[in-house]
Amino acid sequence: MWNTAMHAEFIHDHPDYGFEIPGIRFNWRTIKEKRDAYVRRLNEIYENNVTKARIDIIRGYGKFTSDPEPTIEVNGKKYTAPHILIATGGRPSVPSDSEVPGASLGITSDGFFDLEELPRHSVVVGAGYIAVEIAGILSTLGSKSSLLIRRDKVLRTFDSLISTNCTQELENIGVDVWKHTQVQAVTKSPSGLLEVKVTSSEPGHKPTVKVIHDVDCLLWAIGREPNTEELCLEHVGVKVDAQNHVVVDEFQNTTRKGIYAIGDVCGKALLTPVAIAAGRKLALRLFGNQQCARLDYSNIPTVVFSHPPIGTVGLTEDEAISVHGKDNVKIYSTSFTPMYHAVTQRKVKCVMKLVCAGKEEKVVGLHMQGLGCDEMLQGFAVAIKMGATKADFDNTVAIHPTSAEELVTMR
Amino acid sequence: MWNTAMHAEFIHDHPDYGFEIPGIRFNWRTIKEKRDAYVRRLNEIYENNVTKARIDIIRGYGKFTSDPEPTIEVNGKKYTAPHILIATGGRPSVPSDSEVPGASLGITSDGFFDLEELPRHSVVVGAGYIAVEIAGILSTLGSKSSLLIRRDKVLRTFDSLISTNCTQELENIGVDVWKHTQVQAVTKSPSGLLEVKVTSSEPGHKPTVKVIHDVDCLLWAIGREPNTEELCLEHVGVKVDAQNHVVVDEFQNTTRKGIYAIGDVCGKALLTPVAIAAGRKLALRLFGNQQCARLDYSNIPTVVFSHPPIGTVGLTEDEAISVHGKDNVKIYSTSFTPMYHAVTQRKVKCVMKLVCAGKEEKVVGLHMQGLGCDEMLQGFAVAIKMGATKADFDNTVAIHPTSAEELVTMR
Repeated sequence: MWNTAMHAEFIHDHPDYGFEIPGIRFNWRTIKEKRDAYVRRLNEIYENNVTKARIDIIRGYGKFTSDPEPTIEVNGKKYTAPHILIATGGRPSVPSDSEVPGASLGITSDGFFDLEELPRHSVVVGAGYIAVEIAGILSTLGSKSSLLIRRDKVLRTFDSLISTNCTQELENIGVDVWKHTQVQAVTKSPSGLLEVKVTSSEPGHKPTVKVIHDVDCLLWAIGREPNTEELCLEHVGVKVDAQNHVVVDEFQNTTRKGIYAIGDVCGKALLTPVAIAAGRKLALRLFGNQQCARLDYSNIPTVVFSHPPIGTVGLTEDEAISVHGKDNVKIYSTSFTPMYHAVTQRKVKCVMKLVCAGKEEKVVGLHMQGLGCDEMLQGFAVAIKMGATKADFDNTVAIHPTSAEELVTMR
Repeated sequence: MWNTAMHAEFIHDHPDYGFEIPGIRFNWRTIKEKRDAYVRRLNEIYENNVTKARIDIIRGYGKFTSDPEPTIEVNGKKYTAPHILIATGGRPSVPSDSEVPGASLGITSDGFFDLEELPRHSVVVGAGYIAVEIAGILSTLGSKSSLLIRRDKVLRTFDSLISTNCTQELENIGVDVWKHTQVQAVTKSPSGLLEVKVTSSEPGHKPTVKVIHDVDCLLWAIGREPNTEELCLEHVGVKVDAQNHVVVDEFQNTTRKGIYAIGDVCGKALLTPVAIAAGRKLALRLFGNQQCARLDYSNIPTVVFSHPPIGTVGLTEDEAISVHGKDNVKIYSTSFTPMYHAVTQRKVKCVMKLVCAGKEEKVVGLHMQGLGCDEMLQGFAVAIKMGATKADFDNTVAIHPTSAEELVTMR
């Protein structure tokens, strides 16, 4: 009954999210304008905080110079300091038009936020979490959506339970998942719509070439690149790796003393809270008298806002087996229909897996996809970071009726 | 945008929950029938499991006899066994008609599940979690709802943050909360509707008597009583306390060897998973060769399905102060508007409190009310059961954007 009441609450909120009742219609602009206003408000808050902390903001593109001391030049003016942090982040990758003719007719996740209308027919390229999230949102809101992936599953770096289940769930919500598929060329028809020519080459089959017609939104979500090329890092001896990520040690030190790097520009765990946490630790180390302060990059919990959402922390089953050996890994898993769906025609299952290692069955990985997994993960991440064992999970009384209780009652 | 998509999902589910679109109307019968079918299905599953485990079910009312060995008589037949478990549960309390004339014109939570239509005007009496949940559901679904409480707040055994906030949230969703109020008499008018005569006596003010007219649902949620009176426990020397709860030790032993009691009949932590967990431990102790197996009743997490839901585990601030002393208790708390409400006119805040004790700031209590707190609590309960400190919370990377992340970033 609580869920029924929750429905009543959602009806209350429908107009706020762009749904007009009665005869429910969806209005993309309503939510776009509110979202943009919210982001503007957040940016203002952050900028105010920076100002209040008496930090000068210099707007421009900075480059390191070849001066003897680490020096940055912005808008023709030079700046130096005993501590310099590189936090230039990254940007979505797009194939060059020489690799894929017409690739630049597509947009990226940045462009997604600029869309003024819900596209009628979307093609999303990529198998990572951004591709999964955007394809899910577009499809759920009513855009005919195709997702082009190079292999047979999305999220292939995630636990196999998640990559298999998420691929299935995308299909369940109506996304047309094109497997073993790559874009060959993109052209614009006189009507202004795109024609996307793709090659599908399932292993053991002859490659086939097809054209997806009448696409009004082609979106590349094939990875991200660090913003390092124009920083002239070579002038200060800051090394980058083969993908142009800044090389840092576990204390965020680059290869040049006094220059540090944090966040997506380093290419590791591309998540806002990771950059924030690493920044806090670096500040403590440099200015807080905590010489050993550093962010531990193990057991970082992540949520993917797919349909339903995914929560994951720690090692995948395959990783655990390669670290601990097959005989030392015990898997607990479950698949069930959450109570919310007991009365709905649409059934979306919840899947969960605990990866345990050693005789004490230390929980080294937790992977799940289902309703509520977004808010469910954080607490378990604390327990796992503390070194929780399966017995610690089982010693906790279940909370009924929730989906989370399944994690403490697994057999 | 994910929330917007979630709205689209809810619209998909509206008919399943009794909402007809367009011109959204709510149909109570739709959801009642589905819910009843679901409960029937669950009961069948449980009965099948019992049968599969080769357990005989004897239907009837059992009484202990005065035979020398503990013996139960059902339908004129006697049964004895080396181990007898009392798990007769409890039932909602209703004032007698001599205490409150006309009290029996009201229903209880059991009757709530029998309602064939959404009441137009409901009066719920009580301040516990059942009263809060039912008043919330009725009001949210469109029943004009009054909640009569004896003092100024609901959930008075919960942390003060929760009892204050929940009382406010009930008022926010439109429940008419009558404070310092008790029912004096109930009468049925010729139209079949009830007139509920109440006395309100705010401290320092003269009591006032008022009548709530045209009530089609009066619901008592003033507590629960154990089902012990007719068991003839005196025949076997099983002691009950002043409230008729069976007295048990920490191993669920009653005062008679070979007779045990579990669940609501014992009056402690009236929750399904507590009874299940205590039952498992007792089975392990009696038949699984684990002589020390017993349920630890500390740090039992609980969720109240209010609007928004409440999650709580461990000591309240007041309890912690009385156990550890005021100087040894440190409180962290926060109140914020979840991102879901960034674009809604209706704003429902999320409040959270961590109660920490000692120099190491061990987390001894966690109390919260907000969107998603239902699924959020279980993992934190594992961490707290393990003895988590504030530092353990802070060492975990936040998951953005969630509400749960606030619990690991409190200052």
